[in-house]
Formats: sequence, structure tokens, C-alpha cells
Amino acid sequence: LLAGQEGTPQALGSGFAPANIALCKYWGKRDDELNLPMTSSLSVSLGALGTRTDLSVRDGGDEVLLDGELVPPADSFAARITSFLDLIRSESGPGFRVATQNAMPTAAGLASSASGFAALVLALKEVMGWDLDSRALSMLARLGSGSACRSLFSGFVEWHVGVRDDGMDSYAEPIDCVWPDFRIAPVTVSAERKSIGSREAMRRTRDTSRLYEAWPAQVAEDLLAIRAALRERDFVRLGETAEANALAMHATMMASRPAVLYWRPETLETIRRAWRLREERGIPVYCTMDAGPNVKLIFLRESTAAIESEFDAVEIINPFETATTAKSEY
Amino acid sequence: LLAGQEGTPQALGSGFAPANIALCKYWGKRDDELNLPMTSSLSVSLGALGTRTDLSVRDGGDEVLLDGELVPPADSFAARITSFLDLIRSESGPGFRVATQNAMPTAAGLASSASGFAALVLALKEVMGWDLDSRALSMLARLGSGSACRSLFSGFVEWHVGVRDDGMDSYAEPIDCVWPDFRIAPVTVSAERKSIGSREAMRRTRDTSRLYEAWPAQVAEDLLAIRAALRERDFVRLGETAEANALAMHATMMASRPAVLYWRPETLETIRRAWRLREERGIPVYCTMDAGPNVKLIFLRESTAAIESEFDAVEIINPFETATTAKSEY
Repeated sequence: LLAGQEGTPQALGSGFAPANIALCKYWGKRDDELNLPMTSSLSVSLGALGTRTDLSVRDGGDEVLLDGELVPPADSFAARITSFLDLIRSESGPGFRVATQNAMPTAAGLASSASGFAALVLALKEVMGWDLDSRALSMLARLGSGSACRSLFSGFVEWHVGVRDDGMDSYAEPIDCVWPDFRIAPVTVSAERKSIGSREAMRRTRDTSRLYEAWPAQVAEDLLAIRAALRERDFVRLGETAEANALAMHATMMASRPAVLYWRPETLETIRRAWRLREERGIPVYCTMDAGPNVKLIFLRESTAAIESEFDAVEIINPFETATTAKSEY
Repeated sequence: LLAGQEGTPQALGSGFAPANIALCKYWGKRDDELNLPMTSSLSVSLGALGTRTDLSVRDGGDEVLLDGELVPPADSFAARITSFLDLIRSESGPGFRVATQNAMPTAAGLASSASGFAALVLALKEVMGWDLDSRALSMLARLGSGSACRSLFSGFVEWHVGVRDDGMDSYAEPIDCVWPDFRIAPVTVSAERKSIGSREAMRRTRDTSRLYEAWPAQVAEDLLAIRAALRERDFVRLGETAEANALAMHATMMASRPAVLYWRPETLETIRRAWRLREERGIPVYCTMDAGPNVKLIFLRESTAAIESEFDAVEIINPFETATTAKSEY
């Protein structure tokens, strides 16, 4: 991937990448080292919510800062960054100072590893002077964290599963669909640390869940439906499919042995509350859930008031909001 | 089934059959009319908890009483009994008075249709003077409600899936395993009426859940494990398999479209509480859940005190308790 990209590092570089939420989930790898997925997936990036990374070359080893605080090198967060950096530098160095800042709703349970590795790749591009297109950057980010390959882009994004063993055809691309009325709202039911990390949970599902055998076919079907829904701006079809896809993903986990059960009582309560809004008041709101207990609601701008009145202090995200439109919206 | 069984009805008959809880679930039919299952299943009968049915021949139409109260003929409970009786009598009659009494823990969420149809078949045998063995009676009960075929027997019972289209090899049989220390305790989290009946939920799962495709293979594997666990009195293996099997069944439902989600927040809370007992205190207690929000705990006699202290006012059932042993046990 980096052949012919050996220039002299610049002193400084920085990058920003948005967090993303999958509407058709990535669950299960066909290659654990290269983060090659079993299926394609499709996400929406969260606009201005994400990670900013400032990078500088330094003598000696790496130094990782998170929101201004030095992270001990033995911490898994710092260790993951260092092993990623090892992939792209020679044995003789250089060392990096990686200063990461997450701009996300407090404790919203949004994964920061996707935006984090994507921002790191963008900062590295600047520092290293790589002449790489977004496809190559997407593949680099994927090596850090699978879903990071989607965080290179804004709006709706599809990660192509690819067929090659070396992963050179497994990258993300933006989908040509701007939907300014699309909204997403994370509902945090627990900020507790997950009982099992998503890498381990994916592996266990793939290796022990018989029901997972049907997952790739389900995803293929759901992707077709979601792509069509985006093309036709058919929100109900989009929401129904995204919700059903998330439930099916959790079903594959639940059938693992031992079971992977991320849901907490409040998870179900939130899902049921969204369903009640839909059934009793006709509000088109749908749920999606990732490898954790939190729920993300998806809906359209027109339902904002209903969502705000039903879910206390919920933070509503407009993925297509830019700095310039932000003021006129609110 | 009833060829050569046309005698003169007796005036009176009665039957008792226990409720049963599946440890390897029955989920999905290959024939909706004959209640032929997609897979075999394995249950434990609940001893003295079940249904007693008193039957008498009467002039005119059928009359159905539940716990002494007349049930309107249009009620689905009465209608199901009448259509079942229609299967076994000629067009000219006779009419029956069916008086049903359920002896179950209050609102324990135990299915009464299994014990109900099994008791009805036993009462019919007496009234009609049928000379039928238990295998034939089991098949008759199956026509009323699939899992009723298992309620003809006490202790651990296996329902053989069969291969014939006419269902003549799809019946239950008792398993040669007496386990006096085995306990089961229903934890009622909601007495609300189910949002969707199990017949409809089974059909939807079979017809729309891709994950269900893997269910028959999962059951085949689980049955082997449960049979072995019963043979070897290996409670941990029995509990682990039964719990995983129930979770997998719910996973197949959850992946239906639209989703079938019987769980309530309290369901998850109960499951997690049982898991905590297991993890933190080493108590071998496992969960099983049927087509509804309630949880049944399975454990051994030695864990009774721990279960009673963790679950308020829980009713503990000894499936192998008989009227004569009841006194010495308590």
C-alpha cells in the first residue's frame, strides 16, 4: 500500500474524521489481522462529531495524548496506536506524538476507534507526505480498526467487502446521497465498560454461533434494500431495514456460545419506547444498536419535537450539518 | 389414528396432565394443520402442576368451563377445544361438557394449552373407551397443541420429530431418567397478554427469519448434549445447553421481519441476575424462556436457599415430587 511513499516526514500534521454509525452492520471478520470483513456494510458519518488528531514527529518512542492527558504506553488505547504506527514506519522510526481529541456527545457510547484511526491516517498523510487517494487511505484506516475505513468520508458510506486475500479491494466509498433531513440521536443507557470487546465478540460469534451462518445472506439482502431506500429517499424502508439488520446482528451474538448479550434492561426499554412512538403516534423512528447496550434512534427532521419530548436531554445529530449551515438550522 | 375405536361413549371421564417446560425448544412447524414440528424437542414435566379435565357427554353443542366458569363458545379457548373435539367425533356428535381446572402457580406464565389438551385426550380416552397406547394418545394430543404430546408423560420427555407427512411417527416418549434433585422455578415478570401468539410467531419466524435456517442443526446438536447430560447427570452441561438453546430460539425470533421480541426489560434483568448468581457465587442456575417474557430458572436442590434469597416469593417446582414424597420433602 505504501510502496514508493517514502519521503521525509514533515514536523506537523493534523486530521479530523467523523464518527460513524452503521445502518447495515459490520459483524465478523474473514481475516483478523487485516480487518477484512465477512460482508460489506453501510454507515452514516456524524458530521462534526468525531476525532481530531494532531501529529508530530518526535525523538524516542511514541507519546499518546487523549484530550490533553498523557496515556500510559501500556494502556490498550496507546498500545493499539503504537502497533498501527509500526505498520507504516520502518524499524528505525520515527517516533510520533499523537494528540487525540474526541468531539462527541458526553458518554454517548459512540465508538471513537473508527474516527480515531481515520483521523490518524489523515494526519499521517500530511506528516509523511503520502500521495495517496482516499481509497488507499481508507484501506490504511481499516488496518487500525475495521470501521475506521468508513470514517474517511462524510454522509452515507459503503464499505465494500472485497474478495482479495490481501484486502486491496476492501475499502469504503461515499454514497451519492445528501439527505439534509436525516437525523440520528444516541440514547445512552449505560456508560459502563462493555463486558466483552467487539473484536472478541465478533470472533466468538463467527466461530460459535450457528445462526451466524445466515448473516452474510441477510446483509446482502439488507444492503440492496438500504441502497434503494437511499436512492429513493424512502425513510420507512431505510429505518425498517436498518433496525431489522441491527436486531439480526444482536441475534447472531445471542446465539453464540457462551452468549454475547450486550443488551441491558434499559436497552429494551428504549427500543420499546421507540416502537410505541411509531405504533401509537405514527412517528417514523427506528433503532439501531452496536456492540454495546446503547441505542441510536434514526428519524427525520420533522420528528425532532416528538423525539425530544419522549427522550429526555437527547442529543440530536444532523450528519449533513456543516459549520456554515449550523447557525441557520438552530 | 382412531380406526376401529368406535364404541359407545361412557357418560363420564377425567384426566390429569402436567404442564411441561422445554429444555430443548420446539420452535417452528413443518405442517401447520397436523402440528408437525421442524425438529425434535425435549422437556421436563412439572409433576403435580398441570390441568385436570372432567368430561361428560351432553345433548346439544359443547360446553366449556374453565376453573368452574362457563367460557363463551366464541372465545378462542372454547373454540380451540370444540375444533379439536370435531376431529375425533362424527358429524352427528356427541356434544361434550369439558370442565378444565388448572393447578399452576398463580400467573406463572406457564402454558396451559399443553397440559390442557393432554388432559382432554386422557379424559376422552375414558369416555370414548378407546383402546390406544400412550404413543397414539400423544399424537392425538399433538393435534390439539404441538407441545401437548409431551404432557402425556412425567419426568423428562422427548418429542420425536418424525419424517412422515401424516405425522404417524411424530410423538413423545418419556426418557429413562429420574432426577429427584432437579428443580425448576418460574419467574413471572409480566402477566400481560402476549403481543403475538406462539402459533403466529412460529410461522413468522419460519417464513421470514433467515437465521432460522440454522435452527434445526442447532437443535440436533443440543439434543445430543442434553440427552448425554441426562444420562450422566451432568447438570452444568444440561443447564448450559438448555439456556443457550432458549437464547438461540429467541434469536431466531428477533431476526424475524417484523421482529418477534417477547422480552421485556425485566426479562433481561432476571437473566442477568441469574448470571450474577452463577458468576459471583458459583451457583449453577440457568435460564430458559418460552414464547413470552417470563423466565424459568433451572437448578439443583442444593441451590434452593440461594435461589429463594435472590428471587422473592419464587415458587420452586420439583418435577419428580409425587403426592407421597411431597410431605417428606418439605
